[in-house]
Amino acid sequence: MTSNLYAVILAGGSGTRLWPLSRELHPKQLMKIEGDYTLFQSAFIRLVNNVDDKNILSVTNVKLESQVKTQLAEMQEKFCRKSNYRVITEPEGKGTAPAIALAIKYIEKLQKDKKSNEDPIIVAVPSDNLISDNKLFGKAIAEGVKLAEQNYIVTFGVKPDRADTGLGYIKTKNNKKIKDVSESALKVETFVEKPDKETAQEFLQSDKFYWNSGMFVFKASVMMAELKKYEPDIVRIVKNAEISSQTPTIPYLDFEEMPEISIDYAVMENSKKLAMVPLECEWKDVGSWEAVYDISERDENGNYIMGNVVDLDSKDSMIYSTSKLITTIGLNNVVVVETEDAVLVCDRDRSQDVKKIVNHLKERHDATQLTHKTVYRPWGYYTVLNEGNGFLTKCIYVNPGAKLSVQLHHHRSEHWVVVEGKAQVLKGEEFYELNNGDSIDIAVEEKHSLQNPYDEPLKILEVQKGDILDENDIVRFEDMYGRV
Amino acid sequence: MTSNLYAVILAGGSGTRLWPLSRELHPKQLMKIEGDYTLFQSAFIRLVNNVDDKNILSVTNVKLESQVKTQLAEMQEKFCRKSNYRVITEPEGKGTAPAIALAIKYIEKLQKDKKSNEDPIIVAVPSDNLISDNKLFGKAIAEGVKLAEQNYIVTFGVKPDRADTGLGYIKTKNNKKIKDVSESALKVETFVEKPDKETAQEFLQSDKFYWNSGMFVFKASVMMAELKKYEPDIVRIVKNAEISSQTPTIPYLDFEEMPEISIDYAVMENSKKLAMVPLECEWKDVGSWEAVYDISERDENGNYIMGNVVDLDSKDSMIYSTSKLITTIGLNNVVVVETEDAVLVCDRDRSQDVKKIVNHLKERHDATQLTHKTVYRPWGYYTVLNEGNGFLTKCIYVNPGAKLSVQLHHHRSEHWVVVEGKAQVLKGEEFYELNNGDSIDIAVEEKHSLQNPYDEPLKILEVQKGDILDENDIVRFEDMYGRV
Repeated sequence: MTSNLYAVILAGGSGTRLWPLSRELHPKQLMKIEGDYTLFQSAFIRLVNNVDDKNILSVTNVKLESQVKTQLAEMQEKFCRKSNYRVITEPEGKGTAPAIALAIKYIEKLQKDKKSNEDPIIVAVPSDNLISDNKLFGKAIAEGVKLAEQNYIVTFGVKPDRADTGLGYIKTKNNKKIKDVSESALKVETFVEKPDKETAQEFLQSDKFYWNSGMFVFKASVMMAELKKYEPDIVRIVKNAEISSQTPTIPYLDFEEMPEISIDYAVMENSKKLAMVPLECEWKDVGSWEAVYDISERDENGNYIMGNVVDLDSKDSMIYSTSKLITTIGLNNVVVVETEDAVLVCDRDRSQDVKKIVNHLKERHDATQLTHKTVYRPWGYYTVLNEGNGFLTKCIYVNPGAKLSVQLHHHRSEHWVVVEGKAQVLKGEEFYELNNGDSIDIAVEEKHSLQNPYDEPLKILEVQKGDILDENDIVRFEDMYGRV
Repeated sequence: MTSNLYAVILAGGSGTRLWPLSRELHPKQLMKIEGDYTLFQSAFIRLVNNVDDKNILSVTNVKLESQVKTQLAEMQEKFCRKSNYRVITEPEGKGTAPAIALAIKYIEKLQKDKKSNEDPIIVAVPSDNLISDNKLFGKAIAEGVKLAEQNYIVTFGVKPDRADTGLGYIKTKNNKKIKDVSESALKVETFVEKPDKETAQEFLQSDKFYWNSGMFVFKASVMMAELKKYEPDIVRIVKNAEISSQTPTIPYLDFEEMPEISIDYAVMENSKKLAMVPLECEWKDVGSWEAVYDISERDENGNYIMGNVVDLDSKDSMIYSTSKLITTIGLNNVVVVETEDAVLVCDRDRSQDVKKIVNHLKERHDATQLTHKTVYRPWGYYTVLNEGNGFLTKCIYVNPGAKLSVQLHHHRSEHWVVVEGKAQVLKGEEFYELNNGDSIDIAVEEKHSLQNPYDEPLKILEVQKGDILDENDIVRFEDMYGRV
C-alpha cells in the first residue's frame, strides 16, 4: 500500500428505485441488504485490504453525514487502527462527476499537508454493489493501479450473463488487450448507456460488451484534466471551494451552480484514455427491486419471500415485509415491499419505474419519500407512534453514551416515560435520574436535555402536547454533534 | 304492521372472505362499506318500515354482542321510539339454521308473554347485503308475508346479470307462478349450491335461475316442523334451551352438540313448501373482494382506488388503503387491501381463497385473524401502538359516560397520560380528576378504574410495564357491562 494511493466511496445516492425500503434520508447503501454489514460498510471492507485505511474517504450528502460517520466508525473500530473519519459532505447530490472532483481536490490538499509532490492514484467505487470475492477484487484493483500509473483512466467490466436493461455497458475494441502494461486489461471503444431489451440482447450475444461496474482508478491529475476538458464548470467551482482537511465542506453558494452530471456522461463517454480491467468474480448491482429479486435465493416457485408473509400459489414474485403481515394469493411476477409507513406493489418488469413514483411523492412533498417513520439522528433514532388532536407520541431510542442537545420548545410540552434502560434528564438547571418506569414532565419554554450516560441503550416514550407540533420548534443551546 | 310479524337480522358471521378489513371480532356486517350506516344498520333501516321496531331482533355471536347492541341503539334512537335491545347471543357461530331455530324459540316466548296464540310470521335476513330500493324491498316482503300466511316458506330471488360463482341459485319450476296467492311469486324446483364457472354460465343463459338472496319469510310453526323433519337435533337442543325474554342466552353445554349447518342445507334444499318472490331492485351480496370490486365505482382504467394510494398504469384492479401509503405500478386484475396490521395482495379471480388464508392464520393463532390492532370494547376501543421488552403502549378511547371496570393486574403497572378530554380515575380508594396533559401511575396489584363521566370523548395513552403483559391478567370487581 503506497501512501499516494487513495480510495473514495461514493455514498451520496438516494437509492430511489429501492423505495420504500430506501429513503432519501436513509438510502439503500446504508442498509444491510445481504450479510452482516451495510452495502457501504462492505465497500469499506473490500477497500481496506488494498488501500491504507487513513487514505479511504467517502463523499456523501450532508444529510447522510452522521449515518455515514457512524457506519465508518464501526468499521474502523473493527478493521483498522482507530483513525479520523474522512467524510466529504455535499450540500446536495449532483451526481458522481462533482463528487469525484471534490474528492480529488480534497486528496490534493491532504498530499500538500503531507508535503508530498506525488500525483495521487485514486480508486473510486460505488457504495451499493455486492462483490463475491474480495481477493479477485483486490487483484483487479492492483491491475487498475498499474494502468492508472501509465495515465489510463481504468474502468472495470463484468461479463454479462443476461440482457440487463438497468445497467450501462462498456464496448471493448474487439477485446484487444493493452499488452505492454497489463495481462488482462482491454482497450475500450466506448461507453454505452442503459440499452433497450433488444439492444441488450445483442450485447449479450456479442463478446465485446461488458457491464460497467461503476468503479474507476485514475491519477488525480489525469482525471482533473479530462474534467477540465469536458466539464470545465465543475473544475472551476471545485477550484474555488474552500476545502479544509479538517472539516471538508464547501460553500453552499457555489454548489448551486454546480452541473448535475455523472462521471460516465461527463468523462467516460468522451475520454480517449480509457482501459478496462475485467472483474472476474461475481458482481451485483443492487439498483432496483428486480435486481434484488435477481440476487436473492428463490423457492421452488421462483418466489423470494422475506419477513411475516403468508403466500398461496404465487409464482416468480418477491414479497418482502419489514413490519406487518402480508398475505398474497395467486400473484405472478409481482414485487411487494412493505415498510412501516408505505407499501409498494409492482409488476416485476416495471421495477425501474419506482423512480417515477418517488418523484411524484417528492412533488407532492410526501414525507414517505424522504424519511421512514423511524428517523435517524446522531444520538440514535425515533419513531412516531401516533398523532392526534394536539398531541404526538414518539418512541425515542438513545445510544449508550449519547445525549440529545440542550433545547427548549416554544409551542409544546413533553412527557417522558422510561421503558428500557435509565435516563439522565436535565430539566431547568437540575439533573434527574430516571429509572425504568419513571416519568417526568417538561413544560413549554423549559430548557431540557435527554441523556444516556450509561452502557445500556435507553428507550423512552414521549408524549408531546401543544397547538403546534413541529420538528422545527426547537431552540438548541448545546449540542455534542455541532448542531447549535 | 301486525303484532305477530317479526324480523330477525342474522348478524353472527365472521366475514372471513373480506379479511383483512373484516375480522372475527369486527366483521364486515358491522362496518360501513357504502354510505353512512354499517351493513347491519342498513338491514335494520330496511326492516323498520315493514316490521314494528319492537319486533325486530338480531342473532349474533356473544363476542359481537356489545358492538351489535351499540349499533342497534344508534338506530333505535334515530328511527324508533326508544325500546329495549333484542339481541340473542350464541356462544359460537353454528350457521344460519341454529340461529333461525333460536330466534323462533325466542319469538314464541315473546308471544307467550304477550298471551298471544297467533302463529308468528318471521322475516329472516342476512346482515351483509346492499339493497338499492327500500320501497321495492318492502313490496317483496309484503308479498312474502301473504305467502307465508298460506304456509309457504318464502325465498327471494334476484335475476342474475353475470355468471357469479360466489352465490347460491334458486331454480324455479319453469317460472310458473303461484297465482292463487300472489301476483309475482314463482314455484321453486330446487336450491342449487355455488356453481362452477361453466354451470354459472348455463344458469345465466337459462331464464329459470335466480340468485338466492338469503332472505326468507315463514310461519314459525312451519319452519319448526321442517327443521324437525330434516334436522331434528337442532329442534331438540333448542327446545331444551332456557330462554328468558329478558336476557336471551342459552346454556353453553347444549350448544356444543348443536349441528353446524346453514338453513339452505338444512331446509331449503329439502323442503317441498318453497315459494320464490323475485326481488325487483338492485341487490348486492358483499361476500368477497371481487364482489366489493364489482359494486364499486371504477375509473377509466377499471380501477377502484380508495384511501392514500399512488398508482401508475394499473388496470382492472382494486387498491384499498385504510392507513398507510400504497403505491402500485402496472398491476393487472389484482386486489390490494391494507389495514393497520395486515396487507392482502390477491389475484382478483382468487378472491374466494381469502378464506383459506384466514383459516391458515387461525391455525397458527395469528391475532390478525381475530382482531384489528384496534379492539372494540363496550366502553370504547383501544389500539396497540407498540410493544417492546417489558412494555406495551396503547391509545385508549373512552366514550362519554363510559367506565372501564374496577380492576387490578397481578403482573403489570400502568402509566396513563390524558391527551384528549378529561378523566376520572379511581386509584386505590381515592378518586382523581385528570385534565388534558396530566398523568398518573397505577401500581401492580392496585385496584383502579378509568372513567369518563364527561360529555367529551376521553383519549389516554397507556404505558404498561411488567414481565407478563397479557389481556387476561385482569381481576374485575365491578363492571357496568356485566363482565365481572
